[in-house]
Amino acid sequence: MSPKHLTKGSKLPPPVRGKIRLYSNRFCAYAQRVHLVLDAKKIPYDVVYINLSNIPDWFYEKSPLGKVPALEVESGDVIYESLIIADYLEDIWTTHPLYPRDALQKAKDRILIDQFNKIISAMFKLVLSTNRGYIDDYRSVIVEGMASFENELKKREGPFFSGHKPGMLDYMIWPWCERADLLKLFGSHFLLKTDRYKKLMEWRILMRDDPAVKKSYIDSATHIKYVQSYRAGVPDYDIVIHV
Amino acid sequence: MSPKHLTKGSKLPPPVRGKIRLYSNRFCAYAQRVHLVLDAKKIPYDVVYINLSNIPDWFYEKSPLGKVPALEVESGDVIYESLIIADYLEDIWTTHPLYPRDALQKAKDRILIDQFNKIISAMFKLVLSTNRGYIDDYRSVIVEGMASFENELKKREGPFFSGHKPGMLDYMIWPWCERADLLKLFGSHFLLKTDRYKKLMEWRILMRDDPAVKKSYIDSATHIKYVQSYRAGVPDYDIVIHV
Repeated sequence: MSPKHLTKGSKLPPPVRGKIRLYSNRFCAYAQRVHLVLDAKKIPYDVVYINLSNIPDWFYEKSPLGKVPALEVESGDVIYESLIIADYLEDIWTTHPLYPRDALQKAKDRILIDQFNKIISAMFKLVLSTNRGYIDDYRSVIVEGMASFENELKKREGPFFSGHKPGMLDYMIWPWCERADLLKLFGSHFLLKTDRYKKLMEWRILMRDDPAVKKSYIDSATHIKYVQSYRAGVPDYDIVIHV
Repeated sequence: MSPKHLTKGSKLPPPVRGKIRLYSNRFCAYAQRVHLVLDAKKIPYDVVYINLSNIPDWFYEKSPLGKVPALEVESGDVIYESLIIADYLEDIWTTHPLYPRDALQKAKDRILIDQFNKIISAMFKLVLSTNRGYIDDYRSVIVEGMASFENELKKREGPFFSGHKPGMLDYMIWPWCERADLLKLFGSHFLLKTDRYKKLMEWRILMRDDPAVKKSYIDSATHIKYVQSYRAGVPDYDIVIHV
């Protein structure tokens, strides 16, 4: 398992017997979702990191659109889309279940995961945006969206959304919460006010200590450096190795 | 169960004992997905049709964004998002399973359901569009998207995507396939060429005879009349009663 991101011209690493393989990228939040599920469930897996700005030709045979995350199972079949992979792993790996047992609660958690897409989309546009005019709109979506998650967490027993330990909902929203300090890039007044998100701030500290989270965790300073390289048109996926 | 769509000023119909309730609209393809699952699984349910251009105040207490489909279960909880509702029904109603038993095949079918979103989005934009310039682009997305579903169906045993009877994938894409003749609105050259989609055409005929499909089926002429009313700014949701 090489931590370096593979580029065009690289060789496809041979399969590792007895392990499923995740095609990933260190800075792809969607790919991180799958790492979290694999690590939380303690599933042995092999990782191949893909350089998304210089995709190896062989990768299109695995993932036709060249997208990560892509999961290659032992039969050689490859599936993609982070939530579909997460649900697949939940289906086949029934030890360490991550969804609530109750079907109604599971549906409610999936609705929240779906609603979190608005925050993801606003964060993505914010990071890409060069037009100051829209920036405040994107920030509002994030501020209001996170407020509704704060309220949701207040209503629950906690300390995690899923109870005494993180579950699917916690892990599916975590990658973007890990990146919350990216808002600093737009000025310190952009940061979310901690007193408005008390429960979420406590949750974030606890999440950071979760063994599965620790495995793929990248600190804010590195996320910011990466996004700066991305915005400059030269994304440095190997920044974790370079620092 | 009134077939008329309820408007502002109407009264919320009392719950029906022993039945879950679906808030729906006769012309909402997403709502139709849930009808199909309920009918395929033979789950007894009560329907309340909502007039989406004049939404009753009480409906926002059920579905905060005023969106259908919304499913009210016996506890009074309401869930929304067609695919989340469909998966919930699959979880609690294990007779007549609609997903493949094999987790990998299930994941593959869910990827196809996800990819069908491109076709849905193009159809929606086409129906709303007044700018001829974009119309050909939307049509290309539909033509190419359906071609990939044609190829997929060829690879499978059939005659349905899910085998000898329709399953989740068949039902989740059906509502838009039922509406395929809407393309006529943009000129007869817009219709999909039947010789390019032989398998899908056979599939469509068989689907039309499926007992669950029959229950919510609306013919092409009526779909076209409804879309004309919608494009004219006066959507006639009760057109089925009016004709």
